[in-house]
Amino acid sequence: MKQFLDLSDLSDERLEAVLRRAKQLEANPLSSALRGKIVALLFLNPSLRTLASMEAGVKQLGGDTFVITPGQSSWALETRDGAVMDGDAVEHVREAIPVLAEYADALGVRCFAKGKDLAEDLADGVIRRMAELCPKPFVNLESAAAHPCQALADWKTLEDVGIPRRGGRFVLSWAYHPKPLALAVPAAALAMAARRGMDVTLLRPDGYALPGPLVERAARLAAESGGSIRQTADRREALEGAHVLYAKSWGAPDLYGRPAEEAERRRPLRDWCVAEDWFATARPDARFMHCLPVRRNVKVRDEVLDGPRSVVLREAGNRLHAQKALLLELLTEEGA
Amino acid sequence: MKQFLDLSDLSDERLEAVLRRAKQLEANPLSSALRGKIVALLFLNPSLRTLASMEAGVKQLGGDTFVITPGQSSWALETRDGAVMDGDAVEHVREAIPVLAEYADALGVRCFAKGKDLAEDLADGVIRRMAELCPKPFVNLESAAAHPCQALADWKTLEDVGIPRRGGRFVLSWAYHPKPLALAVPAAALAMAARRGMDVTLLRPDGYALPGPLVERAARLAAESGGSIRQTADRREALEGAHVLYAKSWGAPDLYGRPAEEAERRRPLRDWCVAEDWFATARPDARFMHCLPVRRNVKVRDEVLDGPRSVVLREAGNRLHAQKALLLELLTEEGA
Amino acid sequence: MKQFLDLSDLSDERLEAVLRRAKQLEANPLSSALRGKIVALLFLNPSLRTLASMEAGVKQLGGDTFVITPGQSSWALETRDGAVMDGDAVEHVREAIPVLAEYADALGVRCFAKGKDLAEDLADGVIRRMAELCPKPFVNLESAAAHPCQALADWKTLEDVGIPRRGGRFVLSWAYHPKPLALAVPAAALAMAARRGMDVTLLRPDGYALPGPLVERAARLAAESGGSIRQTADRREALEGAHVLYAKSWGAPDLYGRPAEEAERRRPLRDWCVAEDWFATARPDARFMHCLPVRRNVKVRDEVLDGPRSVVLREAGNRLHAQKALLLELLTEEGA
Repeated sequence: MKQFLDLSDLSDERLEAVLRRAKQLEANPLSSALRGKIVALLFLNPSLRTLASMEAGVKQLGGDTFVITPGQSSWALETRDGAVMDGDAVEHVREAIPVLAEYADALGVRCFAKGKDLAEDLADGVIRRMAELCPKPFVNLESAAAHPCQALADWKTLEDVGIPRRGGRFVLSWAYHPKPLALAVPAAALAMAARRGMDVTLLRPDGYALPGPLVERAARLAAESGGSIRQTADRREALEGAHVLYAKSWGAPDLYGRPAEEAERRRPLRDWCVAEDWFATARPDARFMHCLPVRRNVKVRDEVLDGPRSVVLREAGNRLHAQKALLLELLTEEGA
Repeated sequence: MKQFLDLSDLSDERLEAVLRRAKQLEANPLSSALRGKIVALLFLNPSLRTLASMEAGVKQLGGDTFVITPGQSSWALETRDGAVMDGDAVEHVREAIPVLAEYADALGVRCFAKGKDLAEDLADGVIRRMAELCPKPFVNLESAAAHPCQALADWKTLEDVGIPRRGGRFVLSWAYHPKPLALAVPAAALAMAARRGMDVTLLRPDGYALPGPLVERAARLAAESGGSIRQTADRREALEGAHVLYAKSWGAPDLYGRPAEEAERRRPLRDWCVAEDWFATARPDARFMHCLPVRRNVKVRDEVLDGPRSVVLREAGNRLHAQKALLLELLTEEGA
Repeated sequence: MKQFLDLSDLSDERLEAVLRRAKQLEANPLSSALRGKIVALLFLNPSLRTLASMEAGVKQLGGDTFVITPGQSSWALETRDGAVMDGDAVEHVREAIPVLAEYADALGVRCFAKGKDLAEDLADGVIRRMAELCPKPFVNLESAAAHPCQALADWKTLEDVGIPRRGGRFVLSWAYHPKPLALAVPAAALAMAARRGMDVTLLRPDGYALPGPLVERAARLAAESGGSIRQTADRREALEGAHVLYAKSWGAPDLYGRPAEEAERRRPLRDWCVAEDWFATARPDARFMHCLPVRRNVKVRDEVLDGPRSVVLREAGNRLHAQKALLLELLTEEGA
């Protein structure tokens, strides 16, 4: 494996190896495995955790980084093949990616959904095109439809806190947010939980069912792993006996690219802010997960985030350990 | 000491040790004392000297850094507890700070005054809250009411050029600037000079007396150290026999958060631009100090800045040496 | 040589040595020659290749960097001597440059043309003033009128692909671009090809002759090296027997600083987009060069850029190797 675009790029065997390595790196963070290696970090969108954890991870492994932020220190990039570039974009990814690959031993790229066309964003063509153009190892640091580093960190978090694979009850819940957010994280969390063999409940208000292709992929993964997928709008039912509530917001798929109409549908849903009483029917030790950043008291109340259920800091910490393990997988002999 | 929020966080003994170490590091800048250590630099406001000197300092000591700039490479951060985050801020410091602490061995944070409420800014609650949230060593790289790294560098500069502690005459003068600036640097310089035992004169036009709490704190420090504090609007009198003129601009405290009215009061004060003739009654070898950046020919004339009195580059150089000594104090055994 | 402001700062002997070193570094990229050295990168303008290749180059040589981006992480800088700084600029280069030199072992600075006054930009006063203010080695990473790191990389590229020095036919062609671009790259390419002893044809539409001083300098260099310089607006004639077509856009010199009028003149010239049929009279193996970034299908068609003539990625790769050789020249004993 020389490209990590989606969690599915890791076979079961390599996934388990990466998770084991991540645990070792948590205990012994420093090494010189990446000595002389440079990882280019191309951030077309802002970041705190992803940037910081990649920076720290590469450096703790003895390597080094540089950061390019088009639109800030650099410029807008064109991604469409055949484009007549007489607009804002000054450079095409067909040059930018191979050039960065000339200077670095691996690339990590963050490039969010455009949010105009659902099918286009779900196809994740931009990050896939960039990866094709890259002759060096390539890591997806969140794309239109995938956030596999988050999925890896979340998988490790579930292991860390002892949530069972088979029989573990995982609720992925929609939560209110002032804007229609992208599908990368819910897509990643859904597929991750399904592949892990859990019984997954997708809890969301009417009008916020996830797009068919994402649910169908998760159903296939669940079928292979012995898990299950169901959807509901009923909180009590969804959380009955749940081990985990994973909260995330996303835009209504049928109103994709139409933010004004979407805002109308979203307006009455402000009570989809996760509160302690949501857990009434869950297991007493049920956990709260979120990828961060999170809008406090909008998506989740302080009482939950600051309470004993919350494992959001552990998830964030696991970004570091999981990504370091992944970099070793991509960049060293031991990883192959 | 694991947090450096204000110069007062260093006991007299540790302050002297840090100053000695800074002098040694000036002579021998390279070491491997921070090998394997990563310092996260969170800059909520722009910087040249502070960013560059922290970057260089950590790396000269064998460590490494990463930089997060909310609003540029990252996003706006909420600082108020209990906030309902439905505005611009996407993440709360209650997550951001502990997450960065997961990835780094120490944090340095720059977070300027909000400039709305004087009492709130003087309380320096935002940086203090961030430090509370940080389980790792924490360095204030300029906050609403403090700039202790500058104070440390300025103290070293005074030693370097042989300004006496007891009996040294230190004039902190207001200077004109197109905008009402924050109180962090004048507060830091005033307390530093008072603690150093100097005879401190606060020279400022009517309407620009520093807030009572800052002057009272300085008076207490002066009483302990054998120094003194006085205020005047008379330049000749202020500079009589002075060893040092330290220039800085700040907004009128009673018009804090009211920039239009403040601009009215400030308008007639453009002659508060430090010129060579200000030094007529000072010691012939009196020094000119300023923390930089400085607006030439607005706050100070070229003739002073480019003349032999100016030690502004030495102050800037001492930022590097002082911060390196401070990092060793915070991050290594020898420091304790 | 401790300053690299223009290719002319390298004597013939040192230029050959740097090119040889660049070739060695291409084969063996890692060393510890810059251990303990820090290169400050001051970018007043955006960049992808220059930033990335300097970051990677310094680090592959065992050194480290920090980046300052005025206007983003820092603030606007004043460059005019004697300025009364009551506008946007908060700091003068007379402080900024010496301060950065306190923290670093060398400076690399990118500072584009202002685009108001042709004579002023051609004099390249801003970068020259910065270099004067810098007591440490200084590298021009593109200024108003020079881009010597690009020239060095281009020279190496010509060697790599076997273009002869004497007798090599080099066509520097104007190309369409939506905006009037600066003269740094055409000036650098013209002087480089002339100094290399090539027969240089400047191909451009009427109204886009390069400024006299640039052509005269190139003519002097050509006279010394046994090359030649001519100008034409006729593509067939220009490309007759050509080894290389180097494309670049620039603004009409007589309309410098008058973008509305310039846009009028430029409008009918959209067919100056390099296409495969431009090469009809060239050598069959003629090469296409461009410094990047390039607007595809505006300055050059995909068919050329993606075809076998294009050496643009090699040019970009050579930025890394050439700059590393240059840093060794500036910062190590072996370089002297």
